[in-house]
Amino acid sequence: MKVGITASKSDDFSEWYTQVVLKAELADYAPVKGLIVLRPDGYSIWESIRTSLDVKLAARGVRNGFLPVLIPESLLGKEKEHFAGFNPEVFWVTHSGENKVGDRLALRPTSETLAYSLYSKWIKSWRDLPLRINFWNTALRAEIKSTKPFLRTSEFLWQEGHTVHACSEEAESEVAAILELYRETVEGDLAIPVITGRKSEKEKFVGAVYTTTMESMMPDGRALQMGTSHFLGQNFSRPFEVKFADKDNVEHFAWQTSWGLSWRLIGAMIMVHGDDKGLVLPPKVAPLQVVIIPISYSGEEGAQVLAAAEGMEAELLKAGIRARTDKREELTPGFKFHDWEMRGVPVRIEIGPRDLKDGSAVLATRHDGKKSKVPLDGAAVNIEEELCRVQTEMLGAAKRALDGMIHDASSYGALTKAVEGGGFVRAAWCGGLECEEKVKEETGADIRVVPEGGAEGACIVCGGRAASIPLFARGY
Amino acid sequence: MKVGITASKSDDFSEWYTQVVLKAELADYAPVKGLIVLRPDGYSIWESIRTSLDVKLAARGVRNGFLPVLIPESLLGKEKEHFAGFNPEVFWVTHSGENKVGDRLALRPTSETLAYSLYSKWIKSWRDLPLRINFWNTALRAEIKSTKPFLRTSEFLWQEGHTVHACSEEAESEVAAILELYRETVEGDLAIPVITGRKSEKEKFVGAVYTTTMESMMPDGRALQMGTSHFLGQNFSRPFEVKFADKDNVEHFAWQTSWGLSWRLIGAMIMVHGDDKGLVLPPKVAPLQVVIIPISYSGEEGAQVLAAAEGMEAELLKAGIRARTDKREELTPGFKFHDWEMRGVPVRIEIGPRDLKDGSAVLATRHDGKKSKVPLDGAAVNIEEELCRVQTEMLGAAKRALDGMIHDASSYGALTKAVEGGGFVRAAWCGGLECEEKVKEETGADIRVVPEGGAEGACIVCGGRAASIPLFARGY
Repeated sequence: MKVGITASKSDDFSEWYTQVVLKAELADYAPVKGLIVLRPDGYSIWESIRTSLDVKLAARGVRNGFLPVLIPESLLGKEKEHFAGFNPEVFWVTHSGENKVGDRLALRPTSETLAYSLYSKWIKSWRDLPLRINFWNTALRAEIKSTKPFLRTSEFLWQEGHTVHACSEEAESEVAAILELYRETVEGDLAIPVITGRKSEKEKFVGAVYTTTMESMMPDGRALQMGTSHFLGQNFSRPFEVKFADKDNVEHFAWQTSWGLSWRLIGAMIMVHGDDKGLVLPPKVAPLQVVIIPISYSGEEGAQVLAAAEGMEAELLKAGIRARTDKREELTPGFKFHDWEMRGVPVRIEIGPRDLKDGSAVLATRHDGKKSKVPLDGAAVNIEEELCRVQTEMLGAAKRALDGMIHDASSYGALTKAVEGGGFVRAAWCGGLECEEKVKEETGADIRVVPEGGAEGACIVCGGRAASIPLFARGY
Repeated sequence: MKVGITASKSDDFSEWYTQVVLKAELADYAPVKGLIVLRPDGYSIWESIRTSLDVKLAARGVRNGFLPVLIPESLLGKEKEHFAGFNPEVFWVTHSGENKVGDRLALRPTSETLAYSLYSKWIKSWRDLPLRINFWNTALRAEIKSTKPFLRTSEFLWQEGHTVHACSEEAESEVAAILELYRETVEGDLAIPVITGRKSEKEKFVGAVYTTTMESMMPDGRALQMGTSHFLGQNFSRPFEVKFADKDNVEHFAWQTSWGLSWRLIGAMIMVHGDDKGLVLPPKVAPLQVVIIPISYSGEEGAQVLAAAEGMEAELLKAGIRARTDKREELTPGFKFHDWEMRGVPVRIEIGPRDLKDGSAVLATRHDGKKSKVPLDGAAVNIEEELCRVQTEMLGAAKRALDGMIHDASSYGALTKAVEGGGFVRAAWCGGLECEEKVKEETGADIRVVPEGGAEGACIVCGGRAASIPLFARGY
């Protein structure tokens, strides 16, 4: 395997993606087909997402819990429609040691059924509501199709939140608040702009009353679902008897929500920001934000350079910046530049003997390849600002790219043509399943998201009165 | 189910334990026998342990990663002795959806085999060493015997660390350093004193050259293993071909360690510190450190009391203390006292109209039941000191209890009698398996830990020359 990325993002997107994942050492394939392993840099990005979301969730009163991975078949089957949706991809445990287990055990494809069978015991009265618990775990859904790290794997890291409310309005406002908090995380930390709205009836979560979603567009013109927040109404509280006594001691079925996002976000981040040199990491989630490269190692001069590099590293670490000096003597500065560029480190600092003389260093930013001088004195403040600029510019660039990939179509012919070119296509729709399915069948595009707001004019498929203007696209 | 704890710790330890776990809402039973669920307070304690350990591990250069839960049978069987040890308790996946899987898939009982099959790809030269990766996940081992939350469950939260080194000495010093770091976490955060040393050959981890352990003593006289750190030598690097090229480009098999601790620590914490009123939490891991209870709610007076309570809450939160005001109007202060005592909150603050008048509040500490006055002005500083005192005193009390449960036996008869009374029994041993097995068979006691240092005199079983003075005990 060659060291650098040998595929071009524009020529062979799929090969480029795989190379970046493997060579930047974010992940690797596990011995079981469809499963991957996260190496420390990959897991560190997930930890950043988790920490960021945890802070926001805690502020809303959501707390974390733990659920086991094994769910009895009888319990999983309790909500029929839901079960039918997951059944084909469930992993089944049939034996423990030499013994056959009685009821087959499913590996958690999602935990609604397990969580709500417990909630029905835990919730007795209005005093116990709202109940908001989030679970950081993995979901297991057997992928028959080819694996793509972070995007299509049989086990994936995610979080699933499950809340219970006394009234429908509170639950619905929870659904919206969580989606907004997801948007803040994805745009704010991963610098990926999203479009929010609802899924169509056809595309909603099985068992939900409705599903809200945030969608983004990948550079190859295919849409990616970035996270969903579901209003479950009483669809689960009835079969699972999640009931509460109100202040007058009258029993009611509760109103519920569930919501999740997964490591798929890391896949999106790679695709949206990466380039032919490799990964480009937004500073907020970069395991290493600043790499310092001493340019000389020989003699007295080399010692001075190294001392300056280590001095800056200490200053940056003290300021809370994730920084490291690359002291590997057996490698050339040029090799190191390429290596850290491939790994997507947002800021590179070069310190050589000449820089030292005028008390400065060279600062190079990964996302735009620009170089500038930065004074050695008080470098932390400057570099902190620089990291902030990088984060902002990356979101700005991604936003412009997204905007350029949203097209309008006012006829079925225009829709077909636009879908072919990739990106989102905005077109009026009557809301009918038949029209939605016709588009899917003939163009391969789904309704990815139905943004808020009504529509005027006619459905571009059947000519009936338009109910909304969804975004159509081929998706991952 | 009655609200408070109805069993006595001294009379019915097992029933008391279960009641505390369930009624303090740390955990609940899952629908599958042998599995439990963590409720937010239980999971929060685990998060505290994780955070504390993560900081210490990061300082040593250990980074976190992710491994999937499914391991192919062929891979798990690669180290024969290791496999034989786990085989009877492995959960097996045989189907995904309607399809039979080829090679059966084991749910991870531990990840040595999976991790090292990857390490053999990742490690090429001395530059890649040492490699230190830790995984926070769950292990699955089917428990046939009765379940005990946190102590005996078929799936448990733990961390497993796996490191690779260029020489034996470095690996062995890693084993020792990790055990020391475990000890700091358990004694420092959970206030549970431990005894460290090695496991006997019979009790070591299957596949290890030797196992180091930390052991503690529960109030019922049974020992509990609190964490282990294994020196694997080249036992795994040979079958898994974990090799590296040294600076002269000569290939060597690497030296490895693995180590883990689990949520069993939470079980130990409950047993060591709890009392007949319920849980007693060490401040460092308490989800809620201070509960503030306003004593009056009526009229102007009530409003003033509530304002003072909320003012203190804000001050404590600002100081980084986990505090909350219990504003439930429909419950009496007395009920609240009992409720929070059962949940183990370390410090309770009572604010009533009379307290307000002299600018103070009543502070009650859970571990010793003492009450004192604390000035409302600058309460955060006083309470912070109080939390520190509680933490220290809890460790001190547990240390005294442990010391009181270590007995010396200079004859086989004395050993038998001492084991019967519970606790650790220190006795000279020749190091022979036969003597160890005789003790186990006739008294039910294992060698829990062999502390460092040699021994003089004779083995209390066979009369041969003593090699060490292990601690014998019946265990969990």
